[in-house]
Amino acid sequence: MLKRKLAAEALGTALLLIGVVGSGIMAERLSPTDAGLQLFQNAAATAGVLLVIIVMFGPLSGAHFNPVVTLADWALGGFPRRHVAAYISAQITGAVIGTVLANLMFDLDAVNWSTKTRSAGHLWLGEVIATVGLVAVIFALVRTGRLQLVAGSVAAYIGAAYYFSSSTSFANPAVTLGRMFSDTFAGIEPSSAPMFILMQLIGLVLATGLIRFIYPDTRPDPV
Amino acid sequence: MLKRKLAAEALGTALLLIGVVGSGIMAERLSPTDAGLQLFQNAAATAGVLLVIIVMFGPLSGAHFNPVVTLADWALGGFPRRHVAAYISAQITGAVIGTVLANLMFDLDAVNWSTKTRSAGHLWLGEVIATVGLVAVIFALVRTGRLQLVAGSVAAYIGAAYYFSSSTSFANPAVTLGRMFSDTFAGIEPSSAPMFILMQLIGLVLATGLIRFIYPDTRPDPV
Amino acid sequence: MLKRKLAAEALGTALLLIGVVGSGIMAERLSPTDAGLQLFQNAAATAGVLLVIIVMFGPLSGAHFNPVVTLADWALGGFPRRHVAAYISAQITGAVIGTVLANLMFDLDAVNWSTKTRSAGHLWLGEVIATVGLVAVIFALVRTGRLQLVAGSVAAYIGAAYYFSSSTSFANPAVTLGRMFSDTFAGIEPSSAPMFILMQLIGLVLATGLIRFIYPDTRPDPV
Amino acid sequence: MLKRKLAAEALGTALLLIGVVGSGIMAERLSPTDAGLQLFQNAAATAGVLLVIIVMFGPLSGAHFNPVVTLADWALGGFPRRHVAAYISAQITGAVIGTVLANLMFDLDAVNWSTKTRSAGHLWLGEVIATVGLVAVIFALVRTGRLQLVAGSVAAYIGAAYYFSSSTSFANPAVTLGRMFSDTFAGIEPSSAPMFILMQLIGLVLATGLIRFIYPDTRPDPV
Repeated sequence: MLKRKLAAEALGTALLLIGVVGSGIMAERLSPTDAGLQLFQNAAATAGVLLVIIVMFGPLSGAHFNPVVTLADWALGGFPRRHVAAYISAQITGAVIGTVLANLMFDLDAVNWSTKTRSAGHLWLGEVIATVGLVAVIFALVRTGRLQLVAGSVAAYIGAAYYFSSSTSFANPAVTLGRMFSDTFAGIEPSSAPMFILMQLIGLVLATGLIRFIYPDTRPDPV
Repeated sequence: MLKRKLAAEALGTALLLIGVVGSGIMAERLSPTDAGLQLFQNAAATAGVLLVIIVMFGPLSGAHFNPVVTLADWALGGFPRRHVAAYISAQITGAVIGTVLANLMFDLDAVNWSTKTRSAGHLWLGEVIATVGLVAVIFALVRTGRLQLVAGSVAAYIGAAYYFSSSTSFANPAVTLGRMFSDTFAGIEPSSAPMFILMQLIGLVLATGLIRFIYPDTRPDPV
Repeated sequence: MLKRKLAAEALGTALLLIGVVGSGIMAERLSPTDAGLQLFQNAAATAGVLLVIIVMFGPLSGAHFNPVVTLADWALGGFPRRHVAAYISAQITGAVIGTVLANLMFDLDAVNWSTKTRSAGHLWLGEVIATVGLVAVIFALVRTGRLQLVAGSVAAYIGAAYYFSSSTSFANPAVTLGRMFSDTFAGIEPSSAPMFILMQLIGLVLATGLIRFIYPDTRPDPV
Repeated sequence: MLKRKLAAEALGTALLLIGVVGSGIMAERLSPTDAGLQLFQNAAATAGVLLVIIVMFGPLSGAHFNPVVTLADWALGGFPRRHVAAYISAQITGAVIGTVLANLMFDLDAVNWSTKTRSAGHLWLGEVIATVGLVAVIFALVRTGRLQLVAGSVAAYIGAAYYFSSSTSFANPAVTLGRMFSDTFAGIEPSSAPMFILMQLIGLVLATGLIRFIYPDTRPDPV
């Protein structure tokens, strides 16, 4: 069973990165003159992929695809501590595989390190806020017993967060690592990645406290 | 419990303004040559954020995030009069915090007053119509016992109303006040705000009468 | 009760035309250089409005907003013949009011007759096909007992049909009449309207036969 | 009953091709200067049509509209082998009819063979990946008893896959054959079609194995 769960996490994260990186390449090739149009196409495709992978693998693995979500599920839900490392490894593995497949699909080298610097205080603030929101929306739904709304809500949230956060909302350490492997629209220079991941972890801590305050019970409020 | 509800209203409204103002800044920076493309990106991100904050905080506070909705819920639903002022205060506080965070995320001064004049009779008509529609759709759903459709419907409504109302559908006094704090795409000059808010209140009164006529019973029709 | 139903039909159709005409004006003003971008903004806003008016008024009037749908409901469903004329009158009245409000919101004369010619055989074929699809999707859902899917499906259908039908899918005689009153993006020259309406009626007849063949029973198949 | 099912498959596939080809023509005519904008309009319209045809015909025929899905349903589900050929014939017939109607609606010759070459290793990889994902998402939902999510998920998947796969995700042999008949945006040169179809069949085989590993039981996991 764990093997199937880990496969689900790896496959889902691979498809997520195919979505993020692939649509970024497509958009920047087809709409070279308008960066907003590039981001819009990238955001819409990412939202679509998120919805699909969550409905697809949710019943099997919980559809984390994100180390921050796995850690939050350990802190806030019943996710067993002993599986945290394996989940995160599967997610990172999937992220790299997905990026490599996206590169190959678009006739690029399998690995081409990103040279896009993403490093500034206001971008880091963006990552913190984006991650707080992502974790908060997921666990607000979990704690109120509305799991069936997670897929659509996460898709809508990330689609919007690509725009409202200055960092375009990575909000996921596995995705951050995966994006290093493609020197295209969605890429991030390896040297910029650690601070993004640190900000995501800070967002995780803040969101955990927030959820505990807003929805202290693990069972739904009487609505 | 009230404290948690007020926190939910403040947090949700903050995230709404992060969405509205942040995505406006992103869109105007990335798509400088096409105002329609700017508005489209802004509308899509706003719709996504609305869906998320309503599903996220609905079970706790009712997910108003809008003084007009709180007042309508007092007039049409069972919202207790003694909490109206506290809700509205929380919404306004959240709106200002959200706008400030959006400014900071995009490397702007925390407060930079908008200089965008929005003042004309046809824009005021736009605000009246936009607000009537918003209140009407919410309470049509409430009065027919379909609360689970509110999030998607409000998101679709506001996304569309950004386009069909000449004022781009503020339809929310807290959002109107928050937008004064950012001299960017979504901003409104402080001197233009009072008339917008007055029009929203007129829309509220019209919508209240409309709902009482269309759905006179507070319980669902036998469908 | 009938009075409230007719008010619902008029109000809903008015909001539909506000959506169609208003967003068309906004889009052509903001994106003057790309007609595809204009249509996309118009289509997205129209889809949003359709979703909202159907969920809003569905439990009261059935949410027709379209003479073709009222006629189909008489032919295929249980809609009483004696109310057909009243429904259609309410829809047309609402359509004209909505267009006038859209004109006024955008600082145009209340009535400004469209001069946009839409007259050619291939456009007429477009209207036939668009109307067949619209009626077919609605009554396929009705006949299989899935009314709760109508709003989202009609929104998706019309949003898509704006693109796949050469006529941009009016598919509604009341909307066709309403659009004559605005010399803007969504307008239609009065002399072009009769043939559009005739094609819509032909589409209605074809769709009625189609539904009777595909879903001969008025009760759901055993799925 | 089979006759009605086959009619549903033909009609649904015809509407799919009307959507794919028609919106492609519309988009390339209206947005001649930005290929990304063309693809976005095409993707959004295709997603809308997919959602509609699946909810429309699902209860009757299962809403395959795709030989790969019919074959997968035979391999993974209970689809009877003796109906496979008839389903596929109906799909191909519908695809050709739909493309011809799209051509006529846009004032083109009923048949005008595409001259758009789509032939390269990285595009073939795109088709394999796109087809794996499509089949996997459908049968993940089938095997976990969530048929009601198929329409929205397939729409979101294909809308996204138009972007993340380098081949713009045909992922359907009937659609591939249909697209040969229109020398427009969505077209494919007949000589390029066989390899696309072969790649789709390879994707089918891979997806079948994947589903058997991920969701080995045909009944839902205990969630």
